[in-house]
Amino acid sequence: MTTISDVCSTAAKVRVNGERLWRSLMDLATIGATPKGGVCRLTLSDLDRQARDRVSAWLRDTGCKVEIDGVGNIFAIRPGRRSEAPAVLTGSHIDTQPSGGKFDGNYGVLAGLEVLRTLNDASVITDKPVGVAIWTNEEGSRFVPVMGGSGAFAGVFPADEVLRQRDIDGIAFGDALDAIGYKGSAPIGARAVDAYFEAHIEQGPILEREDKTIGVVTGALGLRWYDVVWTGQDAHAGPTPMHARHDALRAASRMVEAVHQLALRFAPDGRGTVGFVQVKPNSRNVIPGRVLMSVDLRHPDDGALADMDAGLRSAARAIAAELAVECEVDQVAQFAACRFDAACIEHVRASARALGYAHRDIVSGAGHDAIYVARVAPTAMIFIPCKDGISHNEIEDARPDHVEAGANVLLQAVLARACVVP
Amino acid sequence: MTTISDVCSTAAKVRVNGERLWRSLMDLATIGATPKGGVCRLTLSDLDRQARDRVSAWLRDTGCKVEIDGVGNIFAIRPGRRSEAPAVLTGSHIDTQPSGGKFDGNYGVLAGLEVLRTLNDASVITDKPVGVAIWTNEEGSRFVPVMGGSGAFAGVFPADEVLRQRDIDGIAFGDALDAIGYKGSAPIGARAVDAYFEAHIEQGPILEREDKTIGVVTGALGLRWYDVVWTGQDAHAGPTPMHARHDALRAASRMVEAVHQLALRFAPDGRGTVGFVQVKPNSRNVIPGRVLMSVDLRHPDDGALADMDAGLRSAARAIAAELAVECEVDQVAQFAACRFDAACIEHVRASARALGYAHRDIVSGAGHDAIYVARVAPTAMIFIPCKDGISHNEIEDARPDHVEAGANVLLQAVLARACVVP
Repeated sequence: MTTISDVCSTAAKVRVNGERLWRSLMDLATIGATPKGGVCRLTLSDLDRQARDRVSAWLRDTGCKVEIDGVGNIFAIRPGRRSEAPAVLTGSHIDTQPSGGKFDGNYGVLAGLEVLRTLNDASVITDKPVGVAIWTNEEGSRFVPVMGGSGAFAGVFPADEVLRQRDIDGIAFGDALDAIGYKGSAPIGARAVDAYFEAHIEQGPILEREDKTIGVVTGALGLRWYDVVWTGQDAHAGPTPMHARHDALRAASRMVEAVHQLALRFAPDGRGTVGFVQVKPNSRNVIPGRVLMSVDLRHPDDGALADMDAGLRSAARAIAAELAVECEVDQVAQFAACRFDAACIEHVRASARALGYAHRDIVSGAGHDAIYVARVAPTAMIFIPCKDGISHNEIEDARPDHVEAGANVLLQAVLARACVVP
Repeated sequence: MTTISDVCSTAAKVRVNGERLWRSLMDLATIGATPKGGVCRLTLSDLDRQARDRVSAWLRDTGCKVEIDGVGNIFAIRPGRRSEAPAVLTGSHIDTQPSGGKFDGNYGVLAGLEVLRTLNDASVITDKPVGVAIWTNEEGSRFVPVMGGSGAFAGVFPADEVLRQRDIDGIAFGDALDAIGYKGSAPIGARAVDAYFEAHIEQGPILEREDKTIGVVTGALGLRWYDVVWTGQDAHAGPTPMHARHDALRAASRMVEAVHQLALRFAPDGRGTVGFVQVKPNSRNVIPGRVLMSVDLRHPDDGALADMDAGLRSAARAIAAELAVECEVDQVAQFAACRFDAACIEHVRASARALGYAHRDIVSGAGHDAIYVARVAPTAMIFIPCKDGISHNEIEDARPDHVEAGANVLLQAVLARACVVP
């Protein structure tokens, strides 16, 4: 007679097929492949349709039922013994940035596919269903808001608000979805989820630098976005003495350094970035009278983020006073910090430990579908290193052994939650 | 019997008609007038033709012979007793910036016109001829190089190089000149000039701040222009820890401050300006991997300017090393510092003193036709204050009493050089 512990012990020995997973990643990356080795596959484009068709076919081949909701989210569900029970879900997205890579998002979806294939190969029957989700428009490159599919699923945005958004050519999200044949009939957000695990490349350098294979993602940084406008006085660069200037660019430059120093004061997880600067009139021999700049502040603790906000505004006032310019600081977006579910985090950590992978806890600096799904289901994420921490770039890369390791951790975390049937 | 000293004393009492000069300025400013009170009259446009027609007619009305050279420079010459002698020349330009004002350039030309009118009114006969020049394309807004007309006159550029330049629509300078009927037959640069005086608004705040009516311009700042490129590494603003960044914008920001500090080390006449910045990819949540910026360094002493050059390059190396980014510093233009003619400067200074105007020596920070003419003739300039030091702007403004004072100084300096005939 087979005991439950025998079955669990057998399931604990099941491993994904790393080569098969790698081949699927490389296969999917041919759709929208760029000359420099990346992928350009904007959401709801015909290339997105081709990718959805291919991955859906692979998911159907595992025996899953594939259904699509009203914003194009795809769900492939492998039945469990209790088929009416909420599924243990995994997944991510297959849209990319305009100059994106092969791994961002695609890895999480195909790792989920590999989990289903592995369960089939090993004839594992789970108590709860196990599913793979492909969320629409995670990247936000063509339509805002970013993470629109998972956000609609989690009730963050009304679905019709998402469907109404227009791209730069004036095409509505809903029309683009219709055009590629992926406006499904399943109700949005109706599916109950037992737990959600998402595997993803880190998109940062921490795991690689510390030679860790697995990042146990405990949550995501809170974020505040600002538009900052400095107003001085345009003046001719030659005749205007240094002490008579109202140089908006000098003020903005001071702010760039102040934002950096502010983040350092909130080390190690504080982040502060100026990514966007627009100088007016932006002429070689004119002292700039106006500079627009962005500020991006992040921290895993919302209280600390509020302190960073105060620090930013205080720095702005000090710079404006010292350099005799005007400053407006306008907060334009805010995401609260996210703490993932303690039990789900522990499933990931225990799986990494049991598999013998070097691992560490890590906080996600980037946005992910998991952050929205976490609002409606217990959630955690699994990070693997990416080369030089680079993503959103055609040279984005990851190692086959890390890709395989992350999928094995995902498999064990899913099994721990979905429970193997004797 | 009238003695020479009587005559000189009479000439010394001659004054311009400030109201007439002001009316001419306001009249000319209607051609290309902008809603905000400025002037948009790009060189060799039809508006430029209208302005040339109007001012030429005024000059002819004074009895002058008006001739035009091959790059469109206009010369109106009032005969002296020795009509074959080189003329004492004054003038400036009547083209404007796209968002220019009423005074920049136009003041120098119309002050010259007012000198001729005043000499006629007082029946003054000079020994040498007195002339007014209108130089083509001082502003350089439509065609580069700036100061093309005076530069061609002074042999700085070959005339056919100037004629070949194309504007943003592909129209050649020579064709535009033909189209407005101002390609003249006078040989370029053949005219001998006894001395050149140019009246101009200061385009800076010094005279206004010190409550001086007249700036005795002793020369012009030397200038070096640079393109600076910072190369770091694009990276995602969230997942990239502060210490792992190669932030090209932070480096560029440090350079903005370093350029300011460098100019302060060469006070009071050193200038350092960053007017142009281009950030790539210039996205809110991406650490910039590449920044292009301009640097403009000026100083009245070429040796000091060379020291500033060394200081700039040293700052670039230090910033690049500290922030782990690459830097290229490329000098793209250079003007040597200009010292005006001591005798001409003294004519201006003595006239201001004799007329009782508060005055000070000043170095021009901006480029002017006088700087090129100074290469082929003894030259000096006369500055008057402009409101808040602002020029190249529709709100550029000057006071009628200052406009009149500058023209009176111009008149006396011209008379001192041209010598009054008994």
